[in-house]
Amino acid sequence: MINTLTLLKAIQAKKPLVHHITNWVTIYDCANIVRAIGALPVMTHAKEESAEMQAISSSLVLNIGTLTPELVESMILAIQKANELKHPIVFDAVGVGATKLRTNKALEIMNSVHVGIVKGNSSEIAKLAGSDVLTKGVEATEIKEDISVMAKKLAKKYDCTVVVTGAEDIIVSANETGFIVKNGHCLLEEFVGTGCMAASLIGCFAAVEEDYAIASAAALSCFGIAAELASKKATKPAAFKQELFDQIYSLNLADVQTLQKIEVLE
Amino acid sequence: MINTLTLLKAIQAKKPLVHHITNWVTIYDCANIVRAIGALPVMTHAKEESAEMQAISSSLVLNIGTLTPELVESMILAIQKANELKHPIVFDAVGVGATKLRTNKALEIMNSVHVGIVKGNSSEIAKLAGSDVLTKGVEATEIKEDISVMAKKLAKKYDCTVVVTGAEDIIVSANETGFIVKNGHCLLEEFVGTGCMAASLIGCFAAVEEDYAIASAAALSCFGIAAELASKKATKPAAFKQELFDQIYSLNLADVQTLQKIEVLE
Amino acid sequence: MINTLTLLKAIQAKKPLVHHITNWVTIYDCANIVRAIGALPVMTHAKEESAEMQAISSSLVLNIGTLTPELVESMILAIQKANELKHPIVFDAVGVGATKLRTNKALEIMNSVHVGIVKGNSSEIAKLAGSDVLTKGVEATEIKEDISVMAKKLAKKYDCTVVVTGAEDIIVSANETGFIVKNGHCLLEEFVGTGCMAASLIGCFAAVEEDYAIASAAALSCFGIAAELASKKATKPAAFKQELFDQIYSLNLADVQTLQKIEVLE
Repeated sequence: MINTLTLLKAIQAKKPLVHHITNWVTIYDCANIVRAIGALPVMTHAKEESAEMQAISSSLVLNIGTLTPELVESMILAIQKANELKHPIVFDAVGVGATKLRTNKALEIMNSVHVGIVKGNSSEIAKLAGSDVLTKGVEATEIKEDISVMAKKLAKKYDCTVVVTGAEDIIVSANETGFIVKNGHCLLEEFVGTGCMAASLIGCFAAVEEDYAIASAAALSCFGIAAELASKKATKPAAFKQELFDQIYSLNLADVQTLQKIEVLE
Repeated sequence: MINTLTLLKAIQAKKPLVHHITNWVTIYDCANIVRAIGALPVMTHAKEESAEMQAISSSLVLNIGTLTPELVESMILAIQKANELKHPIVFDAVGVGATKLRTNKALEIMNSVHVGIVKGNSSEIAKLAGSDVLTKGVEATEIKEDISVMAKKLAKKYDCTVVVTGAEDIIVSANETGFIVKNGHCLLEEFVGTGCMAASLIGCFAAVEEDYAIASAAALSCFGIAAELASKKATKPAAFKQELFDQIYSLNLADVQTLQKIEVLE
Repeated sequence: MINTLTLLKAIQAKKPLVHHITNWVTIYDCANIVRAIGALPVMTHAKEESAEMQAISSSLVLNIGTLTPELVESMILAIQKANELKHPIVFDAVGVGATKLRTNKALEIMNSVHVGIVKGNSSEIAKLAGSDVLTKGVEATEIKEDISVMAKKLAKKYDCTVVVTGAEDIIVSANETGFIVKNGHCLLEEFVGTGCMAASLIGCFAAVEEDYAIASAAALSCFGIAAELASKKATKPAAFKQELFDQIYSLNLADVQTLQKIEVLE
């Protein structure tokens, strides 16, 4: 169905430069996961170089985990250049629904420029789609609506691919088709930064695959497979995290073919 | 004496949101130690969301390790909201006594709003209490005064709980009672960030225990016990650090009951 | 030739405070590598304390990986104080040649104040020396010139020591003498931050050795030896990185004497 391995090889052959404007908490892990999969990260935040750095990059990953209004200005300059050059953009809507600043700035971004891939947990995506949910800091809270319905609504409204991460990841294109990725492991929930790292991997795959739903599904499946493999070697979060990076670094044909669990979204 | 295990269970049951405005060096470790103990971290710095994020949180942890005047503005907005809602506040006075900026901003915070728990190493606390000590960057230097006396003086003046970290941790309430925590391991001194992580853990315990001296003693005891357990599995700092996180994650009844070394301060 | 071990012991005896104004991606690793080798790190960015923190420090490490114009202002204040006090300065020219901001700010620093040690990868150094190379984000690209020639040109022009990191590290003094350091391991290329960490180690050695070429060669040799030793215990990047820190922490007489590979530059 999705030839993840071909995409993985394309990343390692092309070594795309994946430009991040991201948060200060997981910035190292985001950079390092990009390197582990075989691409090259660059992290900036000065608005004076946003557009120029994006111009020499292959994709853009935005994360508002520790946003300020100035950082969002820098993001918008990078997006405008990415839009002009048709570079893929991943927008990780961290903490939308927790404060007005996050919700308003996320909507400002989505309404003023075009973002190809919007990623969040269930309450972040529901909030962007118009629900009145309250996100608990950067953690998902229960929502009353069906998350697939909210994701489709958001994808259609903004003509983008929507990625909802969770125990199972839901990916929806603007045309309402999509995928469910069932790879993963519960230890991914036990330390900080896995959502951010997932967005960075999507940025790597989108640099080599024009269909953003396929790119997102391949990225999340690889991340989940690496987690499944890591869980066989480490049973606690810190040891597991180290192993996760090394499994991403070592992903091979056999593992990806045998373990991939991507289903078509009904 | 102190029922640390009950507090630990309360953290894991309530999963308090622990709001940090902290430094860029150890921000990841602070977030991750909160997750390891079973609470939820959120890290922000924009003044536009400080008060609102604090309003949905259960406690506030402030750390001036890489302060700017703007960051302190954001801290003060969060403290005002925390004071209004009676949320516990931990203020880690990193580097006070090294530069005028640090000393002046720390005193500005303590004089303009109420901070429930002030934490530092011996020279930071001595400086806040009026000594003319020079802190070596963010490292403690020898002080000429008795640190317990300085801690009591500071606690009384600002009506707060004072925590002095070191080989043995000293905790003093405004009423001059307190504890000495004798758990810990010398490897905690061999890598960066353990002081910051200790403050984050105090923020978790203070979210479930109104007596700040008890909350601080329980937090530091857990941290020290985890270090003692980690030292049995790893003998060098980097391996030890990974193990420390996994021991925090796995702290159990037997360990806490058997190993806890908290004494009443004379 | 170079008595690395004596310098290592001097660092551990003197515990110099190594002041960093650096990037947000690898700031933790830079601080921690300084601690691992036996010195003390302090990381700041507020311009209000730059000069004062530098005044109590023994050396200054600057890194423009995530620069802003404000951060460069803070750097210049710190450099002025370091120049006044004759403290060694290491300037890591991260991403010069990728954007105009990076190139212009690096030249602004080098033209307005005196930097004793300039470090970069081959394309960063070539760009500073006047080549029209394009750096790929923060990654070296191929240059058409001989890198030794470019390094000598730069060293002479700015009366400084130039360090070019790569599979073999090249170190050139203003008088055109220098060293090649042949220690190292290919796994250092497989994760983020090793260039930054190398600059931090140079900052430690320069705090105890006035000849910057010798200090740089000793630092890079120690880093490379630790990597060689780590590669015997770990074969994948994340596990290797942890081991690398613990090898730096444990470097001993026998290893440094037996394994050091420093040659005089022709």
